Amino acid sequence: MTQTIQNRQFRLAQRPHGLPEPSDWELTTEALPAPDDGEVQVAIEYISLDPAMRGWMNAGKSYIEPVAIGDVMRAGTVGTVLESAHPDFATGDAVTGNLGVQTHATVRGEQLRTVDTSLAPLPTYLGALGMPGMTAYFGLLDVGAAEAGDTVLVSAASGAVGALVGQIAKHKGCRTVGIAGGDRKCAYIVDELGFDAAIDYKAGNVHADIREHCPDGVDVYFDNVGGEILDAALACLRRNARVVICGAISQYNATESMYAPKNYMSLLVNRARMEGFVVFDYGERYGEAARALAQWIASGDIKHREDIVEGFEQFPETLLRLFSGDNFGKLVLKIEQS
Amino acid sequence: MTQTIQNRQFRLAQRPHGLPEPSDWELTTEALPAPDDGEVQVAIEYISLDPAMRGWMNAGKSYIEPVAIGDVMRAGTVGTVLESAHPDFATGDAVTGNLGVQTHATVRGEQLRTVDTSLAPLPTYLGALGMPGMTAYFGLLDVGAAEAGDTVLVSAASGAVGALVGQIAKHKGCRTVGIAGGDRKCAYIVDELGFDAAIDYKAGNVHADIREHCPDGVDVYFDNVGGEILDAALACLRRNARVVICGAISQYNATESMYAPKNYMSLLVNRARMEGFVVFDYGERYGEAARALAQWIASGDIKHREDIVEGFEQFPETLLRLFSGDNFGKLVLKIEQS
Repeated sequence: MTQTIQNRQFRLAQRPHGLPEPSDWELTTEALPAPDDGEVQVAIEYISLDPAMRGWMNAGKSYIEPVAIGDVMRAGTVGTVLESAHPDFATGDAVTGNLGVQTHATVRGEQLRTVDTSLAPLPTYLGALGMPGMTAYFGLLDVGAAEAGDTVLVSAASGAVGALVGQIAKHKGCRTVGIAGGDRKCAYIVDELGFDAAIDYKAGNVHADIREHCPDGVDVYFDNVGGEILDAALACLRRNARVVICGAISQYNATESMYAPKNYMSLLVNRARMEGFVVFDYGERYGEAARALAQWIASGDIKHREDIVEGFEQFPETLLRLFSGDNFGKLVLKIEQS
Repeated sequence: MTQTIQNRQFRLAQRPHGLPEPSDWELTTEALPAPDDGEVQVAIEYISLDPAMRGWMNAGKSYIEPVAIGDVMRAGTVGTVLESAHPDFATGDAVTGNLGVQTHATVRGEQLRTVDTSLAPLPTYLGALGMPGMTAYFGLLDVGAAEAGDTVLVSAASGAVGALVGQIAKHKGCRTVGIAGGDRKCAYIVDELGFDAAIDYKAGNVHADIREHCPDGVDVYFDNVGGEILDAALACLRRNARVVICGAISQYNATESMYAPKNYMSLLVNRARMEGFVVFDYGERYGEAARALAQWIASGDIKHREDIVEGFEQFPETLLRLFSGDNFGKLVLKIEQS
């Protein structure tokens, strides 16, 4: 007879105003159900912390429904099957799925995908082989249409998505320039990841630095941050440039109106386009991206770095590290399974 | 022996701050040279007045070099050949070219193109069969990729470009909604041009009106005006929408910084793109557009309207009508040739 498992959960207690506060969360504990027919019981080992989570906490329809008040917070996860009543899964399988900010889950097998831990360790399936990998791959190559010889500029360049964008661009034969905050991150993207140049947005004039490091202008700007950095990049576009709108982390906690790009008429002057995308739309092609990324990781062309914080109850304050610029690499929360 | 012709010219005396003032112009008169070998002497009959002219008066490189201080103001023109020393042109030919704001010009034949006044009267070659026609055609069909069934929204809809955009869209099977200022222009685009609906930006809430008239959202927004109307349109995009940046007339005389589109993240939510273009890039395909437009004009599918002001010396104040919303149709200045 199976012992009852206590499942701990972070639920959205109220919608934040600005940065999420501890009081915006409710920590609950409930008994984990045994799997019914077709269900699988999972012990979650790592939870993905992503900038997009901030948007999911707001009321109002966006590209995805908001998390309802009282619901377990939405999050990508990887874990291990404890007990399966689904033919495709067996105890001990490593799996990934959007199981939320909780220590366990009992879900329909269709919500899960097995992952191969001989190719890469579990947390990598939340990073380079997970959503950030898919986002970088399709955003750069499909939306941005980056090609050999292009100059590719990416913001949040030491982050989960940005680091991959730059490395994929480099692998494809582009000149690659990253914008990051502080010497350590800038040194990392050049020395470790092979970017051609780094711009420290904390150090000086981003606009002048882009001009210096992209002397012929920017063919593809992959924007993760929005705000003044987007405006600086718009001012440096090359003819027929593509601006890929992946996110706007500088604005997610804005309590007044969004910073709006004053230089958008650069799109006309340079016959350029600015285009948004949502990685979920590429679901049917994830296999293509995952195979390419796994190969580049195996060959050493692409390096990845996870920033692992331990302890389920650290979730609220760990999430804030995404917005303070403190984290370095793909941020994941490691759950200590008792 | 040919009598010497006195050529009158408006030259840029200084760069305007805000709306152009009379003192920004210098009216000069000089003897018109006889044509050298390869040259053609032209009597200009109509001068095209276009919103883009305001941009050409500013310092700083844009998609085209600024007009230099002291130079004859740049403008599209149509006229008649007085004397030709070029094998392709003969006295009496109707021609078009960018000859500037002057009553005559002696230029290389390569700067001219003959036009067929049996197909359409001369001023039409500055409107539906000129730059505005090319701009509407390539902006809507190439950049905007409008297709049957799309909802197409266009601003400055009774203007030279907007009126053509809406009619081409309608001809292609799109639902067509125009934004214009005042009852008279709104009635015109619906009753005369066949738009499905008109929105009077002076009357009320543009955002609510777009929602009402584009209940499924906007597939193509063709922007001639920028400013708050662009923001309202961004808030009403349908998935995979295209925003065509053709101009931003509301901002051309801004003395403070440009109005910036606060709702640009709608591009992400709706997987949409915003793209600028410059019609000159389509030069090699003008023939294609001109043939199509001439056919639609002949069949009555496309109507056009020129707003003709007489008198060369009216140029400075007539130009201002573009920015006050006073003009109605393609604005041209008619030169009384003595």
